[in-house]
Amino acid sequence: MRHMKLGLFLAPGGHHMAAWRHPDAYPAGFSIDSYVSAAQTAERGCFDMLFVADVFSLTASGDRQDSFRFEPLTLLSALAMTTKSIGLAATATTSFNEPYNVARKFASLDHLSKGRAGWNIVTSSSTLEAYNFGREAHRDHAARYKKAHEFVQVVRGLWNSWDDDAVIIDKENGVFFDAAKMRMLNHEGVEFSVRGPLTIPRCPQGHPVLVQAGSSEDGKTLAAEFAEIIFTIQRDLASAQAFYADIKSRVAAFGRAPEHALVMPGVMPIVAATRQEARDKYEQLQALIHPVAGLTGLSRTLETDLSGVDVDGPLPPIEVSKLSQSRAVGMVETARRENLTVRQVYERLLVSKGHRQLIGSPSDVADSLQEWFEQGGADGYNIMPSVMPGGLVDFIDLVVPELQRRGLFRKAYAGAMLRDHLGLPRPAPGFIS
Amino acid sequence: MRHMKLGLFLAPGGHHMAAWRHPDAYPAGFSIDSYVSAAQTAERGCFDMLFVADVFSLTASGDRQDSFRFEPLTLLSALAMTTKSIGLAATATTSFNEPYNVARKFASLDHLSKGRAGWNIVTSSSTLEAYNFGREAHRDHAARYKKAHEFVQVVRGLWNSWDDDAVIIDKENGVFFDAAKMRMLNHEGVEFSVRGPLTIPRCPQGHPVLVQAGSSEDGKTLAAEFAEIIFTIQRDLASAQAFYADIKSRVAAFGRAPEHALVMPGVMPIVAATRQEARDKYEQLQALIHPVAGLTGLSRTLETDLSGVDVDGPLPPIEVSKLSQSRAVGMVETARRENLTVRQVYERLLVSKGHRQLIGSPSDVADSLQEWFEQGGADGYNIMPSVMPGGLVDFIDLVVPELQRRGLFRKAYAGAMLRDHLGLPRPAPGFIS
Repeated sequence: MRHMKLGLFLAPGGHHMAAWRHPDAYPAGFSIDSYVSAAQTAERGCFDMLFVADVFSLTASGDRQDSFRFEPLTLLSALAMTTKSIGLAATATTSFNEPYNVARKFASLDHLSKGRAGWNIVTSSSTLEAYNFGREAHRDHAARYKKAHEFVQVVRGLWNSWDDDAVIIDKENGVFFDAAKMRMLNHEGVEFSVRGPLTIPRCPQGHPVLVQAGSSEDGKTLAAEFAEIIFTIQRDLASAQAFYADIKSRVAAFGRAPEHALVMPGVMPIVAATRQEARDKYEQLQALIHPVAGLTGLSRTLETDLSGVDVDGPLPPIEVSKLSQSRAVGMVETARRENLTVRQVYERLLVSKGHRQLIGSPSDVADSLQEWFEQGGADGYNIMPSVMPGGLVDFIDLVVPELQRRGLFRKAYAGAMLRDHLGLPRPAPGFIS
Repeated sequence: MRHMKLGLFLAPGGHHMAAWRHPDAYPAGFSIDSYVSAAQTAERGCFDMLFVADVFSLTASGDRQDSFRFEPLTLLSALAMTTKSIGLAATATTSFNEPYNVARKFASLDHLSKGRAGWNIVTSSSTLEAYNFGREAHRDHAARYKKAHEFVQVVRGLWNSWDDDAVIIDKENGVFFDAAKMRMLNHEGVEFSVRGPLTIPRCPQGHPVLVQAGSSEDGKTLAAEFAEIIFTIQRDLASAQAFYADIKSRVAAFGRAPEHALVMPGVMPIVAATRQEARDKYEQLQALIHPVAGLTGLSRTLETDLSGVDVDGPLPPIEVSKLSQSRAVGMVETARRENLTVRQVYERLLVSKGHRQLIGSPSDVADSLQEWFEQGGADGYNIMPSVMPGGLVDFIDLVVPELQRRGLFRKAYAGAMLRDHLGLPRPAPGFIS
C-alpha cells in the first residue's frame, strides 16, 4: 500500500503571517525548547521529517513580523539528539557557501542522526541577503542555477569519497582505512576546484536525501536531475496534477524512476472538531494581520514598493517576468484572475506564503489530502501549521488518526533512516551521474 | 580562591598519535555515541568546556592515522542537548568561511546551549586544505592575520546587532522587536562588506567566548586584542612563564584586564595509581607508533619531505623561518637543542602534537598542574587524553579529586554559562572596541 509522506515545516511562531500575535504562540520566546517540543510532537505523529528553511536577512517589515531563526544545521543537530526516528532536512544555499563545507555539514548530520539528514538545495535571490555577503546584487537566474548544478555535483562527489567498508581500523597492522576504497574527487570546474576526499566516512544513508523547491524552468530541471523530494506551491488540484505529471516525466527523462522523486506541496491546515470551529480559528488569525506587515510583506514578495497604495483598490500592474520567485508569480496571476484587492491578496495569499490553506473538520482535511494523493497531485505534503504549537497538535491529534484509519499513513516507523521512511533507494558507492 | 580552568580537547581515538591502535580505543567506531559519553564524563568532572579542533583534509599518512572528524558545529550542537553545564568551544577558520555564517552559527549554538558557546579563531595555512576550496596556496602569514582581524570585527559587530531587551513580542500592538534597539553594522572594509543585522537575538552570553591559539607575533597580537582564552604549546615552566607574562602585558596594553585573557597550555596526561603503571601505559602507546605514520606525520608538520631519511640519524637542516606553525618551530628547536634523532623527534614530540606530556601518579600530575598554575605559567589547561575514553576517565577519577582536595578546582558548577565558569564578564550591548 502506498503511504502518504508528511513533513513538518518548522517555523517559530507558526506559518500564518500573524501567527506570532496569537495568544498561544511563543510560549517560550526564542528558545530551543519550543523546537524540541514540536519535533517530538511530529515524531509522535510518525511524520517522515522535519524541514527548516534558511533566511539570511530580516523581512522588510521585520518589527511587525516573526523575524528570528536558529541557524538550520545547528538546530537540526540539536534536534537529532532529542528525537529518534524523524528525518531532518534543512536548506543550504549554493550562493553563500562553499561546497566542501556543505558536503561536510550534511554528512556530519547524517552520521550523528544515524541516517536522517536531507539537504534542500536553493539558490539565493534576495538583495537584502546579498548585502550580508559583500555582494550588491545576485547573479541572474540562469547563472545561479548553473552554479548550483556544479555545486551539487561537487557535493555528491565528496559524499562518494569513501566506500561503505573503507574504514577498517585494523589496529594490529596499523591501517586505519583501506586506501583502495578512497576516491579523490579532483574536480576542476567553472566555479569550483575541489580535490577531496571528505574527512567523514560514507554516510549511513549513502547520501543525505536531496530536496529541491524551485518551480522555475531551471529549478524543475535541477529537481528532475537530482531531487528525491520536490517541495512546491500548488493551490488547486488541476495545477498540482499538471506540475506532478511534468516533474515525473522530466525525472524519467533523466533515466530516474519517477517514484524516487516525491512531490510534496505545502499545505497550511487549520483543523478543529467542526468546520465552524476551524473557520473561527482562521478568522481569529486573519484579524491579527497588522496592515503594515501585510503591505510591506507584499511589497517584498512582489519586489515592488506598494507603500501608499490603497489596500482596498486593485493590485497595481506588476511585470511577472521580472519576479524571481515562483510563488510571487502565482500570487500576481491569481490576483488578476480573481480581481482581488491589495488587502485580499495579502489576506488570502500572503498569509500562508502562497501555500494552500485547508480549513475544516478532520474529515474535510483528510478528504482533500486523500484526493490529491490518489489523483496524481501529490506523494505527500509539507505541513505548515498556522500557529505553533497548537496548529501542529491539532493536525497530529485530529487528522493523522483519520489518515491512519483510511490506510493512507503509517502507524509506526518501519525503518531507522529517512530513506526508509520515504521508500528511497540507497545510492550505490561510487555512483556519480 | 582562584580556580584552575580545565578544557577537554576532544579527539576521536585520543591525542597520542597511535592512540587509535590501543585495544580500548574506538569502542564504537566513527560514532556520536563515543562523543556523548566523553562529554558526559567531562561534565561529571566539572570541566569548564569541551574543545573541538577543525581540519579540512586528511593527514598525509591518512591510512596510518586516525583520520575522520565530525564537523565541529554540528557536533557541539548535538552535545549541547546531551549535557547541561559544560562549555562548548569549536574552531572555525577565517580562511574558508564568511563572517556572517560564522557569527550566525556560534550565536545559534549559544542560544541552543543556553549560553555555553565559544569560538576558536584560526587562520588556515595547510595547502592540502586549500585544495578543497579552489585555492592553490594560502596567502602569507601577515595577510591571513590582517583578514582574520577584520573578520573578528565583523563577527563581533553582528553579535552586537541587538540589545538584550530588543525582542519584545508585543502581541497586542503587533510589534515584534523594538527597532530602536537594533544596530545595523554597515561594515565596509578591505575584505568584507556586511550590512547586518544578524537574524538571531543577542546571545545569552552577550557574545560567545573568544579563543585563540597561534603563538606567532601576529597570533599573539590578535589574542591580546580579542581572546578570552589562549591555547598554547608550552613544554617547560620557564617558557610557559615567559609566554604568560608576555600575553598578559600585551592584553593590558590593549586596555583589557589581564585576568580576562586566560592562558591554557595543552597537556597530555598519562596517569595511573602508581608512577610505574603510568610509565607502562605510556610505553604501551609508544610501541604502537607505526614508522610510516611517524615519518610522514613529521614530514607534514615540518613541511619537509623526510621520506627515505634514516630515522636513527639526526634531523636534516630545516629553516624555521619558513615554517607556518609555531609548534613546528618548537619541535625543530627542541630537536637541535637536545640532539634528537628523527625517531626521537616523532616519538617524544610528535606523539602529543608537540604538547607537554605529564606521566605519573595522581599526585605527580596534580603537583605539576599546581606548580604552573601557582607560579605564573597557566590559568588552566586544555587536557588532551592520550587514549579515549580511558585516558579521560583516568584523569577525572584520579586527578580531578586530588585537585579538588587541594582547593584548586571546583566541586560543582556555580553558574549556568561558560562565562560564569571562566569568570569572564558579559560584554556590554553595543560594545565594539
